[in-house]
Amino acid sequence: MSLNRVPVLIVGSMAFDDLELPTGAFPNTVGGSATYASYAASTFTDVRVVAVVGDDFDGSTLATLEARGVSTSGIERATGRTFRWAGRYDADLVGRTTLDTQLNVFADFQPKLAEEHKTCPIVLLGNIHPALQTQVLDAMAGPQLVVADTMNFWITGEPERLAALLGRVQVLIINDEEARQLSGIHNIRRAAADIRKRGPHTLIIKRGEHGALLFDDTGIFAVPGYPLEEVVDPTGAGDSFAGGFIGHLASHLAKEQPNPRTMRTAMLYGTATASRCVEGVGTSKVQTLVMSDVEGRVAQIRTLFELPR
Amino acid sequence: MSLNRVPVLIVGSMAFDDLELPTGAFPNTVGGSATYASYAASTFTDVRVVAVVGDDFDGSTLATLEARGVSTSGIERATGRTFRWAGRYDADLVGRTTLDTQLNVFADFQPKLAEEHKTCPIVLLGNIHPALQTQVLDAMAGPQLVVADTMNFWITGEPERLAALLGRVQVLIINDEEARQLSGIHNIRRAAADIRKRGPHTLIIKRGEHGALLFDDTGIFAVPGYPLEEVVDPTGAGDSFAGGFIGHLASHLAKEQPNPRTMRTAMLYGTATASRCVEGVGTSKVQTLVMSDVEGRVAQIRTLFELPR
Repeated sequence: MSLNRVPVLIVGSMAFDDLELPTGAFPNTVGGSATYASYAASTFTDVRVVAVVGDDFDGSTLATLEARGVSTSGIERATGRTFRWAGRYDADLVGRTTLDTQLNVFADFQPKLAEEHKTCPIVLLGNIHPALQTQVLDAMAGPQLVVADTMNFWITGEPERLAALLGRVQVLIINDEEARQLSGIHNIRRAAADIRKRGPHTLIIKRGEHGALLFDDTGIFAVPGYPLEEVVDPTGAGDSFAGGFIGHLASHLAKEQPNPRTMRTAMLYGTATASRCVEGVGTSKVQTLVMSDVEGRVAQIRTLFELPR
Repeated sequence: MSLNRVPVLIVGSMAFDDLELPTGAFPNTVGGSATYASYAASTFTDVRVVAVVGDDFDGSTLATLEARGVSTSGIERATGRTFRWAGRYDADLVGRTTLDTQLNVFADFQPKLAEEHKTCPIVLLGNIHPALQTQVLDAMAGPQLVVADTMNFWITGEPERLAALLGRVQVLIINDEEARQLSGIHNIRRAAADIRKRGPHTLIIKRGEHGALLFDDTGIFAVPGYPLEEVVDPTGAGDSFAGGFIGHLASHLAKEQPNPRTMRTAMLYGTATASRCVEGVGTSKVQTLVMSDVEGRVAQIRTLFELPR
């Protein structure tokens, strides 16, 4: 770890994914929100991850993470099998069907934070039970920026715990359907206004191939999705977005506190990171990502809304 | 008509729409692609329209068009009933179901061009039979810019006539599903490359609330949809986009030939015009649109992709 790098804490899932893609079946692919987000963020800064794996998890993934500057000491190795997700993508790679979800060791996950985790100035609370997300915040020494994800399962199943969490989150990153479900409002702009009253001063709404929208007190910012000639595997795109987003903010934190401008720039970096991720199966692209790859894609994305002279 | 204004020719449908919106039923609403596009373009420049209506069409619409600088002498009044479309929108105003289509006098429509139509430097060929679109081009005195729309009905039903037309079109404006159907390619970037090989040097792909993409030799340009707090009626949004798009190009033609920069700026104006249109039922908003309304919305759209200082 470099002394002048601002570390980020990432809490979330590590998993084996059985992927059925139009290009073939890819069983036992290493995945999970914390894995994608950590690989992504490690392109920008030092990362400390808190997660749980089973005794079937391969050590090579931990070694690859460590080689990229990810502290894996917070990854608990529990007795039992690793969280497993199986999904089949439609031919268009937009629709997907969950075939199987096995929580396994993730069912009893209790995040355990060491000193190096508690002191991180930025935390990404991946999509886990809102009570656990809150526990992580309780254990931390007052992070400067709390970024969180959630999903429909918690929105409908744990509305009160989620509401308590939202009051302590500055940036919420969800997709458009989740925003509609959380607010009960179809119109995305009014949904955003409603959700921002519940805590997060900044709401980011992911829209897959259509990019992402940011809502804050300054207004609305829209980043288009970069139209790729070939999308290989959308798995982990949202987590890679979040990792790139916090990674960029962390890499600028020494110079500048998060503000409407850095948040918008971070949107570009998150979008670029996600679009690199989906160019390969599983974490293959994001685990080898370097800043020049990200900067190149950011430049391509900028051309999407620049007027030529 | 002002002497220094560049007129545009618009050919398309004029109709009565029976609209079932979440906010209520609006039977006998004046609509049609030429109507929306003419109102939209008349905000920018002089418009000359070629279309057909039945003897049931109301003169007040023609008077309203004329008052906005639209020459209606090319609107043929045929014996019989005006083209009629009935549709029901879903609660989200995205999905819609066609309940009824009656071609009526539109079934035998043969565009008849007078001298004032033949000499227009810009023509918008609305969504009519590609053989008729070709006839219009044959009758014209070599327009500087040919912009066309089409739909799935012609893509599957008249592929050869459509192919012949595309060879003579510079700008094709279609939606993403039509682009996929026309090219047989799901990936939107490769679909665009395929379609551009068939004639149009510029392809605009409309994506509803997600905005629009432009593909040309310079690259890709993306305009986000403006997130409105309330969408009232999406009918005519695409036609208003096309009208605003050609209107902007015409208003700049004296200074500058259409080029990648003016095309991109015209995308902003088309998007702004469409987003004003959907704020009211039918043509209510677009028929009273003034440039300050459009400029105001363009400014709002620009903030969507500007980084604050």
